[in-house]
Amino acid sequence: MDENVIRKQTITKYMDGKLEEKVDEIAVEFPFTIHVNGEEFATMVCTPSHLDELLLGFLASEGIIRSRADILDFHIDEGKDFCYVTLHNKAPFSQRETGKRFIGSCCGKSRQFYYQVDVKTAKTSYSKVTISPKECIRMMTELQDGSTLFKGTGGVHNAALFLGSDLIVARSDIGRHNALDKLLGYCLIHHIPVRDGVIAFSGRISSEVLLKAAKIGVGIILSKSAPTDLAIELANDLNITAIGFIRGSSFNVYSHPERVKESMKQTSSQ
Amino acid sequence: MDENVIRKQTITKYMDGKLEEKVDEIAVEFPFTIHVNGEEFATMVCTPSHLDELLLGFLASEGIIRSRADILDFHIDEGKDFCYVTLHNKAPFSQRETGKRFIGSCCGKSRQFYYQVDVKTAKTSYSKVTISPKECIRMMTELQDGSTLFKGTGGVHNAALFLGSDLIVARSDIGRHNALDKLLGYCLIHHIPVRDGVIAFSGRISSEVLLKAAKIGVGIILSKSAPTDLAIELANDLNITAIGFIRGSSFNVYSHPERVKESMKQTSSQ
Repeated sequence: MDENVIRKQTITKYMDGKLEEKVDEIAVEFPFTIHVNGEEFATMVCTPSHLDELLLGFLASEGIIRSRADILDFHIDEGKDFCYVTLHNKAPFSQRETGKRFIGSCCGKSRQFYYQVDVKTAKTSYSKVTISPKECIRMMTELQDGSTLFKGTGGVHNAALFLGSDLIVARSDIGRHNALDKLLGYCLIHHIPVRDGVIAFSGRISSEVLLKAAKIGVGIILSKSAPTDLAIELANDLNITAIGFIRGSSFNVYSHPERVKESMKQTSSQ
Repeated sequence: MDENVIRKQTITKYMDGKLEEKVDEIAVEFPFTIHVNGEEFATMVCTPSHLDELLLGFLASEGIIRSRADILDFHIDEGKDFCYVTLHNKAPFSQRETGKRFIGSCCGKSRQFYYQVDVKTAKTSYSKVTISPKECIRMMTELQDGSTLFKGTGGVHNAALFLGSDLIVARSDIGRHNALDKLLGYCLIHHIPVRDGVIAFSGRISSEVLLKAAKIGVGIILSKSAPTDLAIELANDLNITAIGFIRGSSFNVYSHPERVKESMKQTSSQ
Protein backbone atom coordinates (compact mmCIF):
# COMPACT_ATOMS: atom_id res chain seq x y z
CA MET A 1 0.00 0.00 0.00
CA ASP A 2 1.15 3.49 -0.87
CA GLU A 3 1.81 5.27 2.39
CA ASN A 4 1.03 8.60 0.80
CA VAL A 5 -2.69 7.88 0.69
CA ILE A 6 -3.30 7.77 4.46
CA ARG A 7 -1.91 10.06 7.14
CA LYS A 8 -1.96 9.45 10.89
CA GLN A 9 -3.17 12.42 12.87
CA THR A 10 -4.11 13.25 16.45
CA ILE A 11 -7.80 14.09 16.83
CA THR A 12 -10.20 14.66 19.73
CA LYS A 13 -12.68 11.83 20.18
CA TYR A 14 -15.97 12.10 22.08
CA MET A 15 -17.07 8.73 23.46
CA ASP A 16 -18.80 7.54 26.66
CA GLY A 17 -19.41 11.16 27.59
CA LYS A 18 -15.71 12.17 27.50
CA LEU A 19 -13.44 14.05 25.09
CA GLU A 20 -10.06 12.33 24.61
CA GLU A 21 -7.10 12.67 22.27
CA LYS A 22 -6.56 9.74 19.94
CA VAL A 23 -4.51 8.96 16.82
CA ASP A 24 -6.68 8.38 13.75
CA GLU A 25 -6.10 7.55 10.08
CA ILE A 26 -7.10 10.28 7.64
CA ALA A 27 -7.43 9.99 3.85
CA VAL A 28 -4.93 12.20 2.03
CA GLU A 29 -6.38 14.68 -0.48
CA PHE A 30 -3.85 15.86 -3.05
CA PRO A 31 -4.11 18.61 -5.66
CA PHE A 32 -2.99 17.49 -9.10
CA THR A 33 -2.57 20.13 -11.81
CA ILE A 34 -2.30 19.05 -15.44
CA HIS A 35 -0.59 21.18 -18.07
CA VAL A 36 -1.16 20.18 -21.71
CA ASN A 37 1.08 21.51 -24.47
CA GLY A 38 2.38 24.19 -22.13
CA GLU A 39 -1.04 25.43 -21.02
CA GLU A 40 -2.72 24.86 -17.64
CA PHE A 41 -5.61 22.49 -18.33
CA ALA A 42 -7.14 21.46 -14.99
CA THR A 43 -6.55 21.04 -11.27
CA MET A 44 -8.28 18.16 -9.53
CA VAL A 45 -8.08 16.99 -5.95
CA CYS A 46 -7.47 13.26 -5.70
CA THR A 47 -5.99 10.38 -3.74
CA PRO A 48 -2.30 10.41 -4.75
CA SER A 49 -1.99 6.88 -6.14
CA HIS A 50 -1.83 5.67 -9.76
CA LEU A 51 -1.46 9.22 -11.02
CA ASP A 52 -0.39 8.04 -14.49
CA GLU A 53 -3.70 6.19 -14.83
CA LEU A 54 -5.65 9.15 -13.52
CA LEU A 55 -3.90 11.45 -16.00
CA LEU A 56 -4.58 9.25 -19.03
CA GLY A 57 -8.13 8.42 -17.98
CA PHE A 58 -8.96 12.06 -17.33
CA LEU A 59 -7.53 13.25 -20.67
CA ALA A 60 -9.41 10.50 -22.54
CA SER A 61 -12.60 11.26 -20.65
CA GLU A 62 -12.25 14.95 -21.56
CA GLY A 63 -11.72 14.07 -25.24
CA ILE A 64 -8.11 15.33 -25.33
CA ILE A 65 -6.66 11.92 -26.23
CA ARG A 66 -8.12 8.73 -27.68
CA SER A 67 -5.22 6.41 -26.80
CA ARG A 68 -1.84 6.37 -25.03
CA ALA A 69 -0.24 6.86 -28.46
CA ASP A 70 -1.66 10.40 -28.71
CA ILE A 71 0.77 11.45 -25.98
CA LEU A 72 4.33 12.23 -27.10
CA ASP A 73 5.61 12.58 -23.56
CA PHE A 74 4.46 13.27 -20.01
CA HIS A 75 6.19 13.98 -16.74
CA ILE A 76 4.58 13.78 -13.29
CA ASP A 77 6.35 15.81 -10.66
CA GLU A 78 4.86 13.91 -7.70
CA GLY A 79 6.41 16.01 -4.98
CA LYS A 80 5.08 19.22 -6.46
CA ASP A 81 1.83 17.68 -7.72
CA PHE A 82 2.16 19.03 -11.24
CA CYS A 83 2.05 17.11 -14.48
CA TYR A 84 3.25 18.23 -17.90
CA VAL A 85 1.88 16.55 -21.01
CA THR A 86 3.01 17.02 -24.60
CA LEU A 87 0.65 15.70 -27.26
CA HIS A 88 1.70 14.65 -30.76
CA ASN A 89 -0.90 17.09 -31.98
CA LYS A 90 0.45 20.48 -30.92
CA ALA A 91 -2.50 22.40 -32.30
CA PRO A 92 -4.16 24.44 -29.55
CA PHE A 93 -7.39 22.89 -28.32
CA SER A 94 -10.31 24.86 -27.05
CA GLN A 95 -10.43 24.11 -23.36
CA ARG A 96 -13.57 26.08 -22.79
CA GLU A 97 -15.66 24.08 -25.24
CA THR A 98 -15.40 20.88 -23.18
CA GLY A 99 -17.60 22.19 -20.38
CA LYS A 100 -20.03 23.95 -22.70
CA ARG A 101 -23.58 22.86 -22.91
CA PHE A 102 -24.57 20.70 -25.86
CA ILE A 103 -27.86 21.72 -27.42
CA GLY A 104 -29.41 18.76 -29.20
CA SER A 105 -32.04 18.72 -31.91
CA CYS A 106 -35.26 20.34 -30.82
CA CYS A 107 -37.39 18.13 -33.03
CA GLY A 108 -38.12 14.74 -31.58
CA LYS A 109 -36.21 13.04 -28.85
CA SER A 110 -32.54 13.79 -29.00
CA ARG A 111 -29.86 12.12 -26.91
CA GLN A 112 -29.70 13.49 -23.37
CA PHE A 113 -26.16 14.83 -23.49
CA TYR A 114 -25.56 18.06 -21.66
CA TYR A 115 -21.88 18.64 -22.30
CA GLN A 116 -20.24 18.93 -25.70
CA VAL A 117 -17.32 16.75 -24.63
CA ASP A 118 -19.65 13.80 -23.96
CA VAL A 119 -20.98 13.85 -27.51
CA LYS A 120 -17.43 13.12 -28.64
CA THR A 121 -16.37 10.52 -26.07
CA ALA A 122 -19.35 8.54 -24.70
CA LYS A 123 -19.90 5.41 -26.80
CA THR A 124 -22.97 3.26 -27.35
CA SER A 125 -22.26 -0.26 -26.09
CA TYR A 126 -22.43 -3.15 -28.58
CA SER A 127 -21.60 -5.70 -25.89
CA LYS A 128 -23.48 -9.01 -25.94
CA VAL A 129 -22.21 -9.92 -22.45
CA THR A 130 -24.70 -11.26 -19.90
CA ILE A 131 -24.50 -11.46 -16.11
CA SER A 132 -26.15 -13.87 -13.68
CA PRO A 133 -27.72 -12.58 -10.45
CA LYS A 134 -25.10 -14.50 -8.46
CA GLU A 135 -22.18 -12.93 -10.36
CA CYS A 136 -23.73 -9.54 -9.90
CA ILE A 137 -23.88 -9.95 -6.11
CA ARG A 138 -20.43 -11.59 -5.95
CA MET A 139 -18.75 -8.78 -7.91
CA MET A 140 -20.21 -6.11 -5.61
CA THR A 141 -19.06 -8.12 -2.56
CA GLU A 142 -15.57 -8.47 -4.07
CA LEU A 143 -15.42 -4.71 -4.66
CA GLN A 144 -16.31 -4.01 -1.04
CA ASP A 145 -14.06 -6.68 0.47
CA GLY A 146 -11.14 -5.44 -1.63
CA SER A 147 -11.32 -1.94 -0.24
CA THR A 148 -10.18 -2.74 3.30
CA LEU A 149 -7.28 -0.33 2.78
CA PHE A 150 -9.50 2.60 3.34
CA LYS A 151 -11.95 1.18 5.86
CA GLY A 152 -10.33 3.16 8.66
CA THR A 153 -10.58 6.50 6.91
CA GLY A 154 -14.14 6.24 5.59
CA GLY A 155 -15.66 7.76 2.55
CA VAL A 156 -13.43 6.94 -0.42
CA HIS A 157 -14.99 5.66 -3.61
CA ASN A 158 -14.08 2.29 -5.07
CA ALA A 159 -14.37 1.11 -8.65
CA ALA A 160 -13.41 -2.22 -10.21
CA LEU A 161 -13.39 -3.70 -13.70
CA PHE A 162 -14.32 -7.36 -14.22
CA LEU A 163 -13.87 -9.39 -17.41
CA GLY A 164 -15.67 -12.73 -17.37
CA SER A 165 -15.48 -13.71 -13.72
CA ASP A 166 -12.08 -12.12 -13.18
CA LEU A 167 -11.27 -8.91 -11.35
CA ILE A 168 -8.91 -7.04 -13.69
CA VAL A 169 -8.27 -3.87 -11.69
CA ALA A 170 -9.69 -2.08 -8.63
CA ARG A 171 -8.97 1.54 -7.76
CA SER A 172 -9.92 3.90 -4.93
CA ASP A 173 -10.08 7.67 -4.77
CA ILE A 174 -11.62 10.35 -2.60
CA GLY A 175 -13.17 11.66 -5.86
CA ARG A 176 -15.97 9.58 -7.41
CA HIS A 177 -14.94 10.37 -10.95
CA ASN A 178 -11.24 9.90 -10.28
CA ALA A 179 -11.73 6.24 -9.29
CA LEU A 180 -13.41 5.64 -12.67
CA ASP A 181 -10.81 7.69 -14.58
CA LYS A 182 -8.10 5.50 -13.02
CA LEU A 183 -9.85 2.40 -14.44
CA LEU A 184 -10.03 4.04 -17.87
CA GLY A 185 -6.34 5.02 -17.66
CA TYR A 186 -5.37 1.46 -16.65
CA CYS A 187 -7.26 0.05 -19.65
CA LEU A 188 -5.55 2.51 -22.03
CA ILE A 189 -2.07 1.76 -20.65
CA HIS A 190 -2.54 -2.03 -20.69
CA HIS A 191 -4.67 -2.23 -23.86
CA ILE A 192 -7.51 -4.05 -22.06
CA PRO A 193 -10.42 -5.04 -24.34
CA VAL A 194 -13.29 -3.60 -22.32
CA ARG A 195 -16.33 -4.21 -24.52
CA ASP A 196 -17.55 -7.19 -22.48
CA GLY A 197 -16.40 -5.79 -19.16
CA VAL A 198 -18.47 -5.06 -16.06
CA ILE A 199 -17.79 -2.09 -13.78
CA ALA A 200 -18.64 -2.26 -10.09
CA PHE A 201 -18.82 1.12 -8.36
CA SER A 202 -19.33 2.06 -4.72
CA GLY A 203 -21.26 5.27 -5.30
CA ARG A 204 -24.53 6.42 -6.77
CA ILE A 205 -24.97 6.21 -10.56
CA SER A 206 -25.33 9.85 -11.58
CA SER A 207 -25.33 10.89 -15.24
CA GLU A 208 -21.62 11.64 -14.97
CA VAL A 209 -20.85 8.18 -13.59
CA LEU A 210 -22.93 6.53 -16.32
CA LEU A 211 -21.10 8.59 -18.95
CA LYS A 212 -17.74 7.49 -17.48
CA ALA A 213 -18.85 3.85 -17.93
CA ALA A 214 -19.75 4.66 -21.56
CA LYS A 215 -16.36 6.33 -22.05
CA ILE A 216 -14.55 3.31 -20.61
CA GLY A 217 -16.70 1.26 -23.00
CA VAL A 218 -18.42 -1.40 -20.87
CA GLY A 219 -21.98 -2.74 -21.22
CA ILE A 220 -22.82 -3.26 -17.54
CA ILE A 221 -22.41 -1.06 -14.44
CA LEU A 222 -23.13 -2.27 -10.90
CA SER A 223 -23.66 -0.11 -7.82
CA LYS A 224 -24.80 -0.63 -4.26
CA SER A 225 -26.58 2.72 -4.50
CA ALA A 226 -29.26 4.29 -6.69
CA PRO A 227 -29.16 5.86 -10.15
CA THR A 228 -30.75 9.19 -11.13
CA ASP A 229 -33.44 9.46 -13.79
CA LEU A 230 -31.00 11.13 -16.20
CA ALA A 231 -28.50 8.28 -15.73
CA ILE A 232 -31.27 5.77 -16.55
CA GLU A 233 -32.21 7.71 -19.71
CA LEU A 234 -28.58 7.73 -20.82
CA ALA A 235 -28.17 4.03 -19.99
CA ASN A 236 -31.24 3.16 -22.06
CA ASP A 237 -29.93 5.26 -24.92
CA LEU A 238 -26.31 4.03 -24.82
CA ASN A 239 -27.33 0.37 -24.44
CA ILE A 240 -25.82 0.00 -20.97
CA THR A 241 -27.31 -2.20 -18.25
CA ALA A 242 -27.43 -0.18 -15.00
CA ILE A 243 -27.91 -2.29 -11.86
CA GLY A 244 -28.23 -0.62 -8.46
CA PHE A 245 -29.16 -1.20 -4.82
CA ILE A 246 -27.16 -4.44 -4.76
CA ARG A 247 -27.66 -5.34 -1.11
CA GLY A 248 -27.69 -8.84 0.35
CA SER A 249 -29.38 -11.08 -2.19
CA SER A 250 -31.44 -8.47 -4.03
CA PHE A 251 -30.85 -5.71 -6.57
CA ASN A 252 -32.65 -3.48 -9.08
CA VAL A 253 -32.12 -3.46 -12.86
CA TYR A 254 -32.83 0.02 -14.23
CA SER A 255 -32.06 -0.42 -17.94
CA HIS A 256 -31.53 -3.20 -20.47
CA PRO A 257 -32.52 -6.08 -18.16
CA GLU A 258 -32.04 -8.51 -21.08
CA ARG A 259 -28.37 -8.83 -20.08
CA VAL A 260 -29.32 -10.30 -16.67
CA LYS A 261 -29.87 -14.05 -16.94
CA GLU A 262 -28.94 -17.24 -15.17
CA SER A 263 -26.02 -18.90 -16.93
CA MET A 264 -26.42 -22.63 -17.70
CA LYS A 265 -23.42 -23.43 -15.54
CA GLN A 266 -24.76 -21.66 -12.49
CA THR A 267 -28.25 -23.07 -12.83
CA SER A 268 -26.94 -26.66 -12.93
CA SER A 269 -24.80 -26.14 -9.84
CA GLN A 270 -27.75 -25.06 -7.67
CA MET B 1 -42.86 18.53 -1.72
CA ASP B 2 -41.92 19.48 -5.22
CA GLU B 3 -43.06 16.68 -7.52
CA ASN B 4 -40.32 17.50 -10.00
CA VAL B 5 -37.60 16.07 -7.77
CA ILE B 6 -38.76 12.42 -7.83
CA ARG B 7 -40.03 10.41 -10.78
CA LYS B 8 -41.84 7.06 -10.65
CA GLN B 9 -40.43 4.52 -13.04
CA THR B 10 -40.84 0.81 -13.79
CA ILE B 11 -37.71 -1.18 -12.99
CA THR B 12 -36.79 -4.88 -12.83
CA LYS B 13 -36.23 -6.10 -9.27
CA TYR B 14 -34.30 -9.25 -8.34
CA MET B 15 -35.46 -10.66 -5.01
CA ASP B 16 -35.93 -14.15 -3.57
CA GLY B 17 -34.31 -15.59 -6.67
CA LYS B 18 -36.78 -13.99 -9.13
CA LEU B 19 -36.76 -11.03 -11.52
CA GLU B 20 -39.98 -8.99 -11.34
CA GLU B 21 -41.20 -5.65 -12.64
CA LYS B 22 -41.90 -3.05 -9.98
CA VAL B 23 -42.54 0.69 -9.79
CA ASP B 24 -39.75 2.56 -8.01
CA GLU B 25 -39.01 6.19 -7.09
CA ILE B 26 -36.01 7.71 -8.84
CA ALA B 27 -34.26 11.00 -8.00
CA VAL B 28 -34.52 13.50 -10.83
CA GLU B 29 -31.23 14.91 -12.17
CA PHE B 30 -31.65 18.18 -14.00
CA PRO B 31 -29.16 20.17 -16.07
CA PHE B 32 -29.07 23.86 -15.14
CA THR B 33 -27.11 26.22 -17.38
CA ILE B 34 -26.24 29.69 -16.12
CA HIS B 35 -25.56 32.59 -18.47
CA VAL B 36 -23.99 35.70 -16.93
CA ASN B 37 -24.01 39.04 -18.77
CA GLY B 38 -24.90 37.24 -21.99
CA GLU B 39 -22.11 34.66 -21.75
CA GLU B 40 -22.48 30.95 -20.92
CA PHE B 41 -20.91 30.55 -17.48
CA ALA B 42 -21.54 26.98 -16.29
CA THR B 43 -23.78 23.95 -16.57
CA MET B 44 -24.38 21.90 -13.45
CA VAL B 45 -26.57 18.87 -12.89
CA CYS B 46 -28.75 19.24 -9.84
CA THR B 47 -32.00 18.39 -8.08
CA PRO B 48 -34.52 20.88 -9.56
CA SER B 49 -35.69 22.58 -6.38
CA HIS B 50 -34.80 26.01 -4.94
CA LEU B 51 -33.03 26.97 -8.15
CA ASP B 52 -32.91 30.66 -7.17
CA GLU B 53 -30.93 29.72 -4.05
CA LEU B 54 -28.66 27.42 -6.03
CA LEU B 55 -28.02 30.20 -8.55
CA LEU B 56 -27.13 32.83 -5.95
CA GLY B 57 -25.10 30.43 -3.82
CA PHE B 58 -23.15 29.17 -6.81
CA LEU B 59 -22.36 32.66 -8.11
CA ALA B 60 -21.25 33.79 -4.62
CA SER B 61 -19.18 30.65 -4.17
CA GLU B 62 -17.48 31.29 -7.52
CA GLY B 63 -16.73 34.89 -6.54
CA ILE B 64 -19.01 36.40 -9.21
CA ILE B 65 -21.25 38.17 -6.67
CA ARG B 66 -20.86 39.12 -3.02
CA SER B 67 -24.53 39.78 -2.27
CA ARG B 68 -27.98 39.67 -3.86
CA ALA B 69 -27.57 43.38 -4.60
CA ASP B 70 -24.81 42.67 -7.14
CA ILE B 71 -27.47 41.17 -9.43
CA LEU B 72 -29.49 43.63 -11.51
CA ASP B 73 -31.87 40.96 -12.78
CA PHE B 74 -32.17 37.22 -13.29
CA HIS B 75 -34.63 34.98 -15.03
CA ILE B 76 -34.90 31.21 -14.55
CA ASP B 77 -36.57 29.41 -17.42
CA GLU B 78 -37.45 26.30 -15.42
CA GLY B 79 -38.93 24.32 -18.27
CA LYS B 80 -35.88 24.78 -20.40
CA ASP B 81 -33.40 24.66 -17.52
CA PHE B 82 -31.58 27.84 -18.47
CA CYS B 83 -30.94 30.87 -16.34
CA TYR B 84 -29.96 34.36 -17.48
CA VAL B 85 -28.26 36.72 -15.04
CA THR B 86 -27.43 40.38 -15.52
CA LEU B 87 -24.99 41.88 -13.04
CA HIS B 88 -24.80 45.57 -12.16
CA ASN B 89 -21.15 45.33 -13.12
CA LYS B 90 -21.23 44.65 -16.84
CA ALA B 91 -17.47 44.44 -17.16
CA PRO B 92 -16.45 41.09 -18.59
CA PHE B 93 -15.04 38.75 -15.97
CA SER B 94 -12.40 36.20 -16.65
CA GLN B 95 -14.21 32.89 -16.36
CA ARG B 96 -11.10 30.84 -16.85
CA GLU B 97 -9.26 32.29 -13.87
CA THR B 98 -11.73 30.88 -11.34
CA GLY B 99 -10.60 27.28 -11.90
CA LYS B 100 -6.92 28.16 -12.17
CA ARG B 101 -4.47 26.94 -9.65
CA PHE B 102 -3.37 29.35 -6.97
CA ILE B 103 0.35 29.25 -6.33
CA GLY B 104 1.09 30.55 -2.84
CA SER B 105 4.33 31.89 -1.44
CA CYS B 106 7.14 29.35 -1.59
CA CYS B 107 8.80 30.68 1.53
CA GLY B 108 7.29 29.39 4.74
CA LYS B 109 3.88 27.84 5.17
CA SER B 110 1.33 29.40 2.90
CA ARG B 111 -2.36 28.78 3.07
CA GLN B 112 -3.42 25.53 1.41
CA PHE B 113 -5.62 27.02 -1.27
CA TYR B 114 -5.49 25.36 -4.64
CA TYR B 115 -7.91 27.48 -6.65
CA GLN B 116 -7.66 31.19 -7.21
CA VAL B 117 -11.37 31.68 -6.61
CA ASP B 118 -11.08 30.34 -3.06
CA VAL B 119 -8.48 32.96 -2.14
CA LYS B 120 -11.13 35.57 -2.87
CA THR B 121 -14.20 33.95 -1.29
CA ALA B 122 -13.25 31.63 1.63
CA LYS B 123 -13.28 33.55 4.90
CA THR B 124 -11.52 32.93 8.20
CA SER B 125 -14.12 32.41 10.92
CA TYR B 126 -14.18 34.82 13.85
CA SER B 127 -17.07 33.01 15.49
CA LYS B 128 -16.99 32.53 19.28
CA VAL B 129 -19.87 30.04 19.15
CA THR B 130 -19.56 26.79 21.14
CA ILE B 131 -21.40 23.50 20.80
CA SER B 132 -22.16 20.83 23.39
CA PRO B 133 -21.72 17.13 22.53
CA LYS B 134 -25.49 16.65 22.92
CA GLU B 135 -26.32 19.47 20.50
CA CYS B 136 -23.84 18.07 18.03
CA ILE B 137 -25.52 14.65 18.04
CA ARG B 138 -29.03 16.15 18.04
CA MET B 139 -28.34 18.37 15.01
CA MET B 140 -26.99 15.44 12.97
CA THR B 141 -30.06 13.38 13.96
CA GLU B 142 -32.35 16.26 12.96
CA LEU B 143 -30.61 16.51 9.57
CA GLN B 144 -31.13 12.83 8.91
CA ASP B 145 -34.72 12.67 10.18
CA GLY B 146 -35.63 15.69 8.08
CA SER B 147 -34.56 14.06 4.84
CA THR B 148 -37.33 11.45 4.67
CA LEU B 149 -38.40 12.93 1.33
CA PHE B 150 -35.60 11.21 -0.43
CA LYS B 151 -35.34 8.03 1.58
CA GLY B 152 -36.96 6.02 -1.19
CA THR B 153 -34.56 7.18 -3.87
CA GLY B 154 -31.29 6.88 -1.97
CA GLY B 155 -28.14 8.82 -2.36
CA VAL B 156 -28.99 12.51 -2.21
CA HIS B 157 -26.93 14.82 -0.02
CA ASN B 158 -28.48 16.84 2.76
CA ALA B 159 -27.25 20.04 4.35
CA ALA B 160 -28.77 22.15 7.11
CA LEU B 161 -27.94 25.42 8.83
CA PHE B 162 -28.56 25.83 12.58
CA LEU B 163 -28.44 29.07 14.55
CA GLY B 164 -28.44 28.56 18.32
CA SER B 165 -30.58 25.44 18.71
CA ASP B 166 -32.84 26.28 15.78
CA LEU B 167 -32.87 24.69 12.35
CA ILE B 168 -32.94 27.63 9.93
CA VAL B 169 -32.96 25.84 6.59
CA ALA B 170 -32.35 22.33 5.23
CA ARG B 171 -31.73 21.52 1.58
CA SER B 172 -31.16 18.35 -0.46
CA ASP B 173 -29.49 17.80 -3.79
CA ILE B 174 -28.02 14.95 -5.80
CA GLY B 175 -24.83 17.07 -5.95
CA ARG B 176 -22.83 17.46 -2.71
CA HIS B 177 -21.83 21.02 -3.47
CA ASN B 178 -25.26 22.04 -4.69
CA ALA B 179 -26.86 21.28 -1.31
CA LEU B 180 -24.35 23.65 0.32
CA ASP B 181 -24.71 26.29 -2.40
CA LYS B 182 -28.49 26.26 -1.76
CA LEU B 183 -27.82 27.07 1.92
CA LEU B 184 -25.53 29.92 0.91
CA GLY B 185 -28.13 31.22 -1.55
CA TYR B 186 -30.85 31.06 1.12
CA CYS B 187 -28.68 33.08 3.51
CA LEU B 188 -27.98 35.72 0.85
CA ILE B 189 -31.66 36.04 -0.11
CA HIS B 190 -32.89 36.23 3.50
CA HIS B 191 -29.91 38.17 4.95
CA ILE B 192 -29.22 35.51 7.59
CA PRO B 193 -26.37 36.38 9.99
CA VAL B 194 -24.32 33.19 9.67
CA ARG B 195 -21.22 33.91 11.76
CA ASP B 196 -22.40 31.83 14.73
CA GLY B 197 -24.11 29.20 12.61
CA VAL B 198 -23.49 25.46 12.47
CA ILE B 199 -23.71 23.46 9.26
CA ALA B 200 -24.69 19.78 9.35
CA PHE B 201 -23.82 17.84 6.19
CA SER B 202 -24.56 14.26 5.15
CA GLY B 203 -21.38 13.67 3.15
CA ARG B 204 -17.65 13.48 3.69
CA ILE B 205 -15.81 16.71 4.50
CA SER B 206 -13.52 17.15 1.49
CA SER B 207 -11.51 20.34 0.97
CA GLU B 208 -14.26 21.63 -1.31
CA VAL B 209 -16.95 21.04 1.31
CA LEU B 210 -14.85 22.74 4.00
CA LEU B 211 -14.30 25.69 1.67
CA LYS B 212 -18.07 25.92 1.06
CA ALA B 213 -18.55 26.18 4.84
CA ALA B 214 -15.96 28.97 4.91
CA LYS B 215 -17.71 30.73 2.02
CA ILE B 216 -21.07 30.49 3.81
CA GLY B 217 -19.22 31.90 6.83
CA VAL B 218 -19.90 29.49 9.71
CA GLY B 219 -17.49 28.39 12.46
CA ILE B 220 -18.62 24.75 12.88
CA ILE B 221 -19.32 21.97 10.38
CA LEU B 222 -20.78 18.59 11.37
CA SER B 223 -20.72 15.40 9.30
CA LYS B 224 -21.55 11.76 9.85
CA SER B 225 -18.60 10.89 7.63
CA ALA B 226 -14.83 11.58 7.60
CA PRO B 227 -12.79 14.58 6.54
CA THR B 228 -9.68 14.47 4.33
CA ASP B 229 -6.28 15.68 5.53
CA LEU B 230 -6.48 18.73 3.27
CA ALA B 231 -9.89 19.66 4.73
CA ILE B 232 -8.43 19.43 8.24
CA GLU B 233 -5.49 21.68 7.25
CA LEU B 234 -7.90 24.24 5.82
CA ALA B 235 -10.17 23.99 8.88
CA ASN B 236 -7.22 24.63 11.21
CA ASP B 237 -6.15 27.56 9.09
CA LEU B 238 -9.60 29.13 8.62
CA ASN B 239 -10.54 28.69 12.32
CA ILE B 240 -13.38 26.26 11.60
CA THR B 241 -14.29 23.37 13.92
CA ALA B 242 -14.70 20.22 11.79
CA ILE B 243 -16.57 17.39 13.52
CA GLY B 244 -17.03 14.03 11.77
CA PHE B 245 -18.09 10.41 12.27
CA ILE B 246 -21.10 11.52 14.32
CA ARG B 247 -22.65 8.11 14.93
CA GLY B 248 -24.75 7.09 17.91
CA SER B 249 -23.30 8.86 20.93
CA SER B 250 -19.74 9.39 19.66
CA PHE B 251 -17.94 11.67 17.23
CA ASN B 252 -14.48 12.96 16.29
CA VAL B 253 -13.30 16.58 16.46
CA TYR B 254 -10.65 17.20 13.81
CA SER B 255 -9.88 20.89 14.29
CA HIS B 256 -10.42 23.64 16.86
CA PRO B 257 -11.85 21.39 19.61
CA GLU B 258 -12.03 24.43 21.92
CA ARG B 259 -15.51 25.13 20.52
CA VAL B 260 -16.84 21.81 21.86
CA LYS B 261 -17.91 22.16 25.48
CA GLU B 262 -20.79 21.29 27.77
CA SER B 263 -23.05 24.27 28.16
CA MET B 264 -23.98 25.26 31.75
CA LYS B 265 -27.64 24.63 31.04
CA GLN B 266 -27.12 21.15 29.76
CA THR B 267 -24.74 20.18 32.56
CA SER B 268 -27.27 21.18 35.21
CA SER B 269 -30.09 19.22 33.57
CA GLN B 270 -28.16 15.94 33.64
